[in-house]
Amino acid sequence: MPLVVQKYGGSSVADADSIRRVARRVAATRDAGHEVVVVVSAMGDTTDDLIDLSREITSSPSQRELDQLLTAGEQISSALLAMALHEFDAPATSFTGRQAGLRTTDSFGAARITEINPSRLRSSLDEGCVAIVAGFQGWTADEHTTTLGRGGSDTTAVALAAALDADVCEIYSDVDGMFTADPRVVPTAQRIDFLTYPDATELAAHGAKILHLRAVEFAQRHGVRLHVRSSFTEQPGTWVAASREDLPAGWATTRTDETTDPQQTEDNPMEEPLIQGVAHTRDQAMLTVVNIPDKPGRAASIFAALSQAVSVIDVLGQTHTARENGLVDFSFALPTEDAERARTALLEMQDELEFTDVSVDEGVGKISVSGHGVRSNAEVPAQLMRALADAGITVNMFTTSEARISVVVADHQVEDAARAIHSAFGLDGDTEAVVHAGTGR
Amino acid sequence: MPLVVQKYGGSSVADADSIRRVARRVAATRDAGHEVVVVVSAMGDTTDDLIDLSREITSSPSQRELDQLLTAGEQISSALLAMALHEFDAPATSFTGRQAGLRTTDSFGAARITEINPSRLRSSLDEGCVAIVAGFQGWTADEHTTTLGRGGSDTTAVALAAALDADVCEIYSDVDGMFTADPRVVPTAQRIDFLTYPDATELAAHGAKILHLRAVEFAQRHGVRLHVRSSFTEQPGTWVAASREDLPAGWATTRTDETTDPQQTEDNPMEEPLIQGVAHTRDQAMLTVVNIPDKPGRAASIFAALSQAVSVIDVLGQTHTARENGLVDFSFALPTEDAERARTALLEMQDELEFTDVSVDEGVGKISVSGHGVRSNAEVPAQLMRALADAGITVNMFTTSEARISVVVADHQVEDAARAIHSAFGLDGDTEAVVHAGTGR
Repeated sequence: MPLVVQKYGGSSVADADSIRRVARRVAATRDAGHEVVVVVSAMGDTTDDLIDLSREITSSPSQRELDQLLTAGEQISSALLAMALHEFDAPATSFTGRQAGLRTTDSFGAARITEINPSRLRSSLDEGCVAIVAGFQGWTADEHTTTLGRGGSDTTAVALAAALDADVCEIYSDVDGMFTADPRVVPTAQRIDFLTYPDATELAAHGAKILHLRAVEFAQRHGVRLHVRSSFTEQPGTWVAASREDLPAGWATTRTDETTDPQQTEDNPMEEPLIQGVAHTRDQAMLTVVNIPDKPGRAASIFAALSQAVSVIDVLGQTHTARENGLVDFSFALPTEDAERARTALLEMQDELEFTDVSVDEGVGKISVSGHGVRSNAEVPAQLMRALADAGITVNMFTTSEARISVVVADHQVEDAARAIHSAFGLDGDTEAVVHAGTGR
Repeated sequence: MPLVVQKYGGSSVADADSIRRVARRVAATRDAGHEVVVVVSAMGDTTDDLIDLSREITSSPSQRELDQLLTAGEQISSALLAMALHEFDAPATSFTGRQAGLRTTDSFGAARITEINPSRLRSSLDEGCVAIVAGFQGWTADEHTTTLGRGGSDTTAVALAAALDADVCEIYSDVDGMFTADPRVVPTAQRIDFLTYPDATELAAHGAKILHLRAVEFAQRHGVRLHVRSSFTEQPGTWVAASREDLPAGWATTRTDETTDPQQTEDNPMEEPLIQGVAHTRDQAMLTVVNIPDKPGRAASIFAALSQAVSVIDVLGQTHTARENGLVDFSFALPTEDAERARTALLEMQDELEFTDVSVDEGVGKISVSGHGVRSNAEVPAQLMRALADAGITVNMFTTSEARISVVVADHQVEDAARAIHSAFGLDGDTEAVVHAGTGR
């Protein structure tokens, strides 16, 4: 019997009606002859509400206690979803991260999965039950509760799909899939029907908030096929796999082969650069370690400090050439809410690393263009810079990798920049993308 | 170092300010040189809010899922209290029932504690930490989450006090202790400074909602000294122990000996009946199993069925003399919210037990008079009935035990009845009891 893991985000389970809607969908999947594991986020704003509550008590909550607090959110939504499934005559049992056998490191707030023992979920499936798992949470060897950090529920879903050898892992949100840009900002954005893992990684890493980077990386490492789709429609969304040939042939929603243009698959790249999409992220901070001696191992030490403190970092640049005094600067972009934690972690190492300061600039955003050949074709960055200049937007900083160019601009210009770049690379479609309004994400 | 277990109810942790107030008190106890374990209920109306949420989804939630849902409430309050203690520079760690080593039966919604492994709490105390435990919850051998039913947090506190061999278990609420009647209804009620376990059991069983019956029974079985007091004042409340001699001599708040009247201690009862207090309970239902054949073992079967379905039952009567047809009726009083579950459990046994019906009368309340010699002195029931008759109150049913008389009256007459009986037995004090208003319980 094919096994599907479905992940539903907070907006999909925001209230009793939404939970019932999800339950109906899950029950239908089960009735169609699938084993179903559901991973669920906390209801709507629950996580934010709990964080607000903790801030009424302390400005610097213990991360261990914050994890203990926040995991209650997914525990609530998963239990309610189980009850809702019972109303559709589908047997269902909810599981916390601990009960689902999800073991993690003890990096509270940004724990990494170290091991999954899916035997209890397997038993539940064998009994014909839908297994509902509280996303975003795990349990350490010392029996502390942990959270996986941002994108944690996506990662939970993919990790369980890998551990249970699922046929597909479906990531549901209120958008029909992954687009050439955020359709809420760039109305002419087009849905992408298929992405390889590396392409999806680039898109996820740099602003396509629908699917989290860690989840894609996990999927690639374990060969988990992803299907990113809307919980509001039945139409297929974006598939992510090693290749189109790897998609499950018998799957009802995989009939995207017809639209395949062989010239545009990864197996047959053309020499022309192929731009996959434009992603943007707001609420970013730029953090700069100032005047650090250019000695071997310094970067590694900085990364080690940051990896304990934050779940996502993005290197945007470093002054490659040491100044006369032998000092360099490192700059990073990271979510604003992580900036203070990152700064504190770095300052604790000031004596060891001998830098003079850590500066934080909070009012920035990031736009990334991803695709093939963006580095080997000098034309791509030129085209990008021209588009931004034409739109009157100043670039603070930029960086390139094999498959991506990222620029940092002022926060209030991020959306204009995304639209300008999307047009400049000829990505605009004829029809406006459908976005199901009013559900947030 | 003396070890104290403190239990705070939902109204004591209703919001951030209340949580801070509790934290200040806990920190002061620690600073005074005690090891402290805190057991905490869910914040204010959290449990009711979660139940309402589940009712939006289903009218008959799975009890297993309801437990998974509700335990989130205490997880939240305990984590927040730990954060608040950190603000008072007191190291503190929160623990779920699972983490605290609290093993229970798998009677979801009304689980019983089977075993406590306090090693983790002990380690935490040894490190100088305050251990904060989510009340009301446990964990089965099969790793399901359970709740202990009504009064669960009191029971958690007493059970942990027993397992850790605590010097005292303090039960905090917004009332100064246990009274001769509920001071909110009978303003002339007097605080009782000391009660033996049996006396406290009677008072707890029949309406003194400050301390739960199960907790007293547990305390008696394991010799745990209880101190029932207000979280709003520093004055001593009501001590519950085997005898006054058993109270911890060095305890700051135990100086109640001075007020001891040796004639009124259990060790030296006078022949005159000694009325301890008047307790009342509203929102009760009277459930009657109608026309059951009077064969041996019938009552046992009924109790067995009910014990699975509800956490508190109170036998009020049975028609002792079988009617001509050899059939008897059993009547029980129980909380209204349990009535439907009890009725369902009984109806499932209808074929086996051969009764004709189960009737439920929801609009009743119960008043109990407890003390010594209430049964051996015919004067006591007579005095009670006269007081009720004078107040124009009709008694539906009554029952007596060695240390208690209970009557069932119409719900709207319960409070009048409590006041009339309190006066009739000469319990009225000269001053009005202090009740801290606006905090609920």
